[in-house]
Amino acid sequence: MRVEHIGIAVKDLTAVADQYQKLFPGIKIVPEPVADGSMKMAIAHFANIKIELMEPLKEDSPVGKFIAKNGEGIHHLAFLTDDMEASLANAAACDIRLVTEKPYIGAEGFLVAFLHPKDTHGVLSEFCQKPIS
Amino acid sequence: MRVEHIGIAVKDLTAVADQYQKLFPGIKIVPEPVADGSMKMAIAHFANIKIELMEPLKEDSPVGKFIAKNGEGIHHLAFLTDDMEASLANAAACDIRLVTEKPYIGAEGFLVAFLHPKDTHGVLSEFCQKPIS
Repeated sequence: MRVEHIGIAVKDLTAVADQYQKLFPGIKIVPEPVADGSMKMAIAHFANIKIELMEPLKEDSPVGKFIAKNGEGIHHLAFLTDDMEASLANAAACDIRLVTEKPYIGAEGFLVAFLHPKDTHGVLSEFCQKPIS
Repeated sequence: MRVEHIGIAVKDLTAVADQYQKLFPGIKIVPEPVADGSMKMAIAHFANIKIELMEPLKEDSPVGKFIAKNGEGIHHLAFLTDDMEASLANAAACDIRLVTEKPYIGAEGFLVAFLHPKDTHGVLSEFCQKPIS
């Protein structure tokens, strides 16, 4: 199983992207449109993993609330699955609740489901499955 | 550049390792001795990245203090460099302070240096360089 990406909540995406380019030479940072307008997003492509940089545009959005409570920082980890149903069955077998009742289409068209951080030792964890192309 | 590992602070390493084995079938979890006795560590090997699980054994250790302040959760990201000197020069050029004055030998014999999270938008970031074998 792969860790598909690491999500980071930031206040100023442009400033962070600029710092990343200087600090991590050679990485590629690509803006990613967010359909619901709740945040600005860019994806930093490292050799083995992506870092999803998220700047909230609305205070009452999930990332906006996260920053209000915790400040900037690492927001979630996403685990790539090729069988969402089986992964959610594993989560249920571990008594892990989902944040939303059902998986939905998230960034980059992936099918995503977030696990409740209270049931995963404080780490907001996402299962994501590649869109069928 | 690669993200070498993700560090997670946990209260009960055995319980988390057990949950990981059920939730992420096929991953390998390997105990990693910590020389100074400040924590129990195990490394969960995913296909593309490692997750370092850290259970503090001393309340006044860095991970113990992290949990006391924030609860369990993602603690740091480690970025693999093959030139620590160049990476620290990039950090200095970005006005990023180091947590310790100089790099030192950390987990798995890597040369490590932590960047101050106040200068890296809330993310405790580590540069690490493989030991010369």
